[in-house]
Parts: sequence; C-alpha cells; structure tokens
Amino acid sequence: MAVKCKGQTFIFENPPHIVAHAAIVGPEESKGPYSDYFDLHLDDAKYGEDSWEKGEERMAANAVNLSLDKASVTAADVDLMLGGDLLNQLITADFVARDLDAPFLGIYSACATLVEGLSLGAALMDGGFADCVVAFASSHYQTAERQYRTPLEYGVQYPPYKQFTVTAAGSYVLGWVGGDVWITHATFGKVIDLGVTDPNDLGSAMAPAAAEIILQNFKDLNRGLADYDLILTGDLGITGKKVLTSLLEEKNIMADDKLMDCGGEIFGGQKQYGSGGSGVGASASFFGSVIIPRIKAGEFSRILFVGTGALLSALTVKQKESIPAIAHAIVVEKIPGG
Amino acid sequence: MAVKCKGQTFIFENPPHIVAHAAIVGPEESKGPYSDYFDLHLDDAKYGEDSWEKGEERMAANAVNLSLDKASVTAADVDLMLGGDLLNQLITADFVARDLDAPFLGIYSACATLVEGLSLGAALMDGGFADCVVAFASSHYQTAERQYRTPLEYGVQYPPYKQFTVTAAGSYVLGWVGGDVWITHATFGKVIDLGVTDPNDLGSAMAPAAAEIILQNFKDLNRGLADYDLILTGDLGITGKKVLTSLLEEKNIMADDKLMDCGGEIFGGQKQYGSGGSGVGASASFFGSVIIPRIKAGEFSRILFVGTGALLSALTVKQKESIPAIAHAIVVEKIPGG
Repeated sequence: MAVKCKGQTFIFENPPHIVAHAAIVGPEESKGPYSDYFDLHLDDAKYGEDSWEKGEERMAANAVNLSLDKASVTAADVDLMLGGDLLNQLITADFVARDLDAPFLGIYSACATLVEGLSLGAALMDGGFADCVVAFASSHYQTAERQYRTPLEYGVQYPPYKQFTVTAAGSYVLGWVGGDVWITHATFGKVIDLGVTDPNDLGSAMAPAAAEIILQNFKDLNRGLADYDLILTGDLGITGKKVLTSLLEEKNIMADDKLMDCGGEIFGGQKQYGSGGSGVGASASFFGSVIIPRIKAGEFSRILFVGTGALLSALTVKQKESIPAIAHAIVVEKIPGG
Repeated sequence: MAVKCKGQTFIFENPPHIVAHAAIVGPEESKGPYSDYFDLHLDDAKYGEDSWEKGEERMAANAVNLSLDKASVTAADVDLMLGGDLLNQLITADFVARDLDAPFLGIYSACATLVEGLSLGAALMDGGFADCVVAFASSHYQTAERQYRTPLEYGVQYPPYKQFTVTAAGSYVLGWVGGDVWITHATFGKVIDLGVTDPNDLGSAMAPAAAEIILQNFKDLNRGLADYDLILTGDLGITGKKVLTSLLEEKNIMADDKLMDCGGEIFGGQKQYGSGGSGVGASASFFGSVIIPRIKAGEFSRILFVGTGALLSALTVKQKESIPAIAHAIVVEKIPGG
C-alpha cells in the first residue's frame, strides 16, 4: 500500500516547490562571511523587545511574515504551518503561530526541526492534503544558552569542539508554482546513541546519525555520492563534519569535497565561535539564503540536505544521560528527476 | 490540488485502522473508577527506576512495546513513530525512540500531542507513505510538576479549577487491517489566546480552542451535533468542560449530554484532584482503554476526539505571558461512512 515509500524514504510523486523563503540573523551572524545573503540583520539580540525570548519570537514572526510576502500569500492562504525551536515547549513557534491565522502543528527534532517541517509539509502536500505549507524554525544564542547551560552573566570558555548557538530564524513557503526548487524525497531517521556524554561535543554525538541517514538515503534510492552535487548538513560544526567525513570514509565514501555544514560555515571558521554554529536557526537561515540561490543558478542541480539533532535537555545532562541524536534528510532539486 | 482537504479538515480516502493500543497508568489513576480498563498499573511512580523521569520513560516505552505486541508487529515493521510528551525537548519520547528500531518524529502540542500524532500518522498512511505508524504520548505528575511549577517537596494546594497532571502513557498502532476502528478525518486548529494568565486555570484557557475546532469540524464536513455520538475532549478538566459547554450553547449547540472529558473523568471527580486530570497521558490512556472498546461494542458509532493543549512554559509564566491554546480533532468511526 505504501507505494510512495522505500525503506525510510518518502518519494514525492508531485513534489512541492519551495516557493519562497526568508531569513533573519542576529548580530554575530551579521559579522560572518555570509551576512549579505540574509534578508534582515539584528544589531540587538533582543530586537527591541524587553527579553531575549520576545526578541526570538519577533525574529521568527518576521521571518515567517517576510516569507509569506515574498510568496505573495497571506496566512489565511496557508493550509498548515509546521514550526519548532529549541525553547522548552516550543514557545517561540507557539507564540508566532498565535498571531497568524493558520492551523499549526508543533514539531521538534532539535536542530533537525526545519528538515522535519519541510519533510512533513512536502509529504502532506504530495498526499493531497494541502496546497500551501509554511515550515519555520529558529534558535537564539542568549535564550538557548541560559536555558540549556548557565546564566549568560557567568561567561563561558569555548573549547574548539564546542558549537555556538546561532541567532537566526528561517521560514519556507511550500506551494505548487514558483521558486523553481523542488523537494523530491524525504528520509526519516532513527534515534541513535553512541554514548557521547559531553554536552559541549554535540557534533560528535550527531555525526553518526548524519552518516546513517546519508547511507539510508543512498540505499533506499539506489544512489551514491555521484548523484548529489552537495551534501549539506545542519549542524555538525567543524568537529562534527570531520567525524562525519571519517565515518563515510570507512564506508569508502570519499565525500569531503561535497560536504558542507551550515553551522561550520556561518561564522567563517573564526575561533571565538569554537566549532562553528549550532541551533536550528543555522540551517534554517543558511539553506534558504545561501544554498537555494546556488541551486537556482545551476551550481547544484541536486542536493541532500541533512538536518541533525542532539536530543538532550538541561535535565538529561544533569542526570548524566548520554546524548541521543537523530537526522532527517530531504532531496532538493532544480529539475525533479533531471 | 488538495483534494483531500476541506477548510482545516483532512478527509482520508483510505482511512487507517487503530489496530491496537496500550495504556499504563500511575498510582493515583489506578485508584480511579476506570482503573480496570488500563493494561498496567504502577504502584510506584518511579517504576523501579532511580528518577521520576526514568520512570516516565520506562512507562512510555512499555506502553509502546505492549501496543506492538498486541498488534503482532515489531518495531522493525513500523514505518514511522510519532511521539511526544510534556518534558522539555520531549526527552521521554526521544529516549523511548532510542531503544526502538524505527524512524521517529518528535511532535508537540501539549495535551493535544496524541491527537497530533494520530492525525499526522493517519494522513501519512492515507497519503501512501506508510503501512504501519505508531503514535504515543505520556505525562507524569512528578516530572511535570517539578518542571512546570515547584519542587514537589513544597506541596501545593489544589483550587477547584486546577487540574492534576495524570501519570500515564498511551500508544496506538495504526495499520490497514484489524482493530475495527477507523480514523476517517482530522481537523487541525489554530493557536488562540483569550488572555487567561493563571497557569492553574488551563481548562478555561483551552476551552475556546476546543469550541473552535468542534465548530470548524462541523463546518468543514457540513455536520452537526447529531452526527456524533460523543465529543471526547482531552483534557479540559471539569471546569474547562463547563466553559466549553457554555461556549457551544452560545452557538445553540446543546452538547452537554454528548461531551466527555478524559481528564474530568479519570479520577471520578474526587475533590483532591481539583478539576480532574490534565497532561497528555490522560487522553492517551483514556481514549484507547475506555472509549475504543465502547466504539467496538457499538455504543458509539462515530466520535469526535478533540485534543486540547495549553502552550505555556515555566518561563512564559514567569514572564507573565498569557496562555495560548490549541486544539486538534480526529473523527473515529466503527464503520467509515457508516
């Protein structure tokens, strides 16, 4: 019966377009080498609000509204919004949805949340349930840091393998016409846990999940590295990308030239950001703003976009649990089947 | 294009069956009038583990495994698991999924999480992407209370409108054959906020969302109260159910005899539980264990199951935000279209 599924991969018969996208980034991200690609830049992480959380909410809301404007639709045209973030109970996404006149589903896969939203949105459209879906996600340095780790006033040192939570929001409008970029497949991952317990080393915790989902996608679609122009991960950071490269090499997949990590890129490798960016805002902003234009320009004709999430909480760290990880992936193409 | 959607309602052409379900409840729920309906009862809220959180995880994992056993499938047969809970970053569901060999998507709509999972699972099956989906959810008095409110050692007084978080987990296996109960439609709600700020009065915050989704379902399917034998909400509590009754009466819908609330029922109205149960575990356990048998027995031939969620966090309460609410609904039938 499940004619549109092979292994863990959904195959879209009527692949939806990414009609429009928008990204807003924070002060640190605005200093990075990709700054000019993003739609809006905050010079104040509170975005003029009286708390960081309200600043994150405003950033995410404005990203969603900007993406709707670019797609020439209003919230009332949207059949479903799929959104999430890193804050407890997804309060950023919840409060963004409160101000929009469209049905909303909360989703969470840590930094794989955007890919979860794009995957589910594409599947529900291909399944005949929706003509217009919005997927959005955000993260924020100050809100995440004080929730997961320590009060910001304490200050922290950045070991080279630790990632820096990106302040950014990205929103994507899926539809049937326009945009000239298609989501053609989605591969859903299992939760794996190889026993990493250091919450500063999330890249190493997530890399095995990324490797698994890449291999699963290849297997399900009978594809190999040659079938993709780029494997974009979000967000392993510089350290996690190295681990992923090694894990793939063990399977005789020499992917180094084709691997790019949103978080690893976004700060341009500057040391004060440790291993680079993390937080779902990194991939939510980078994929749309930096990579989609390169797909449209013909530089990449088919990419695999792998969202990776570390499924820890402040409490699991205190209870000395190891860190489970998950990855989900979508195939994004300039010309479906081309 | 979206031929299987009307308004906010998905219409399933090949509605999946609820093949099997299982529920495990905690010590307090085991004293209630429905105790005998549940599969397993804990006399220790830690379930023999060294923390309440690990106890909740074990309870949820065992509910999932028991539902798989009842459906005569293993995790390897499951195309997708959709799970969530009330803990930060959905750690119960994440850790349950870690031990199961199946793809996993984290979902969150507070106490509407189970209905979100059943809805999405049914849609993905009807869309041709899956033959077997598991939807599961849990809540736990001690883990929720200390996360959302105060250390348990402080003790709390229960005003009559305050709900008591239910310790329970429920898991549902969706498939094509067996079970003789179908999910035929799903109606997805918008986030609404009428300005309730008292985190002890969640029933009043959620009742308007419940009213809206019931009216939306009626409108989308051109139905009325006479088309349903039961409107099951989860979980408004006794107070919230009264508010919902009034809100529907204002629309000339005299639903009192047909409304039942999982949380309002589960403790049998005893005063020490305030307004009755809350927490997604209430509906996750009650719907399968108490209501599905009554559908199978022919007492109800078509019901509307409305999940209601209060989208607050400990932080939004401290920041004095009002409490947004959401509701999603599914139509469950003994004979589809019958």
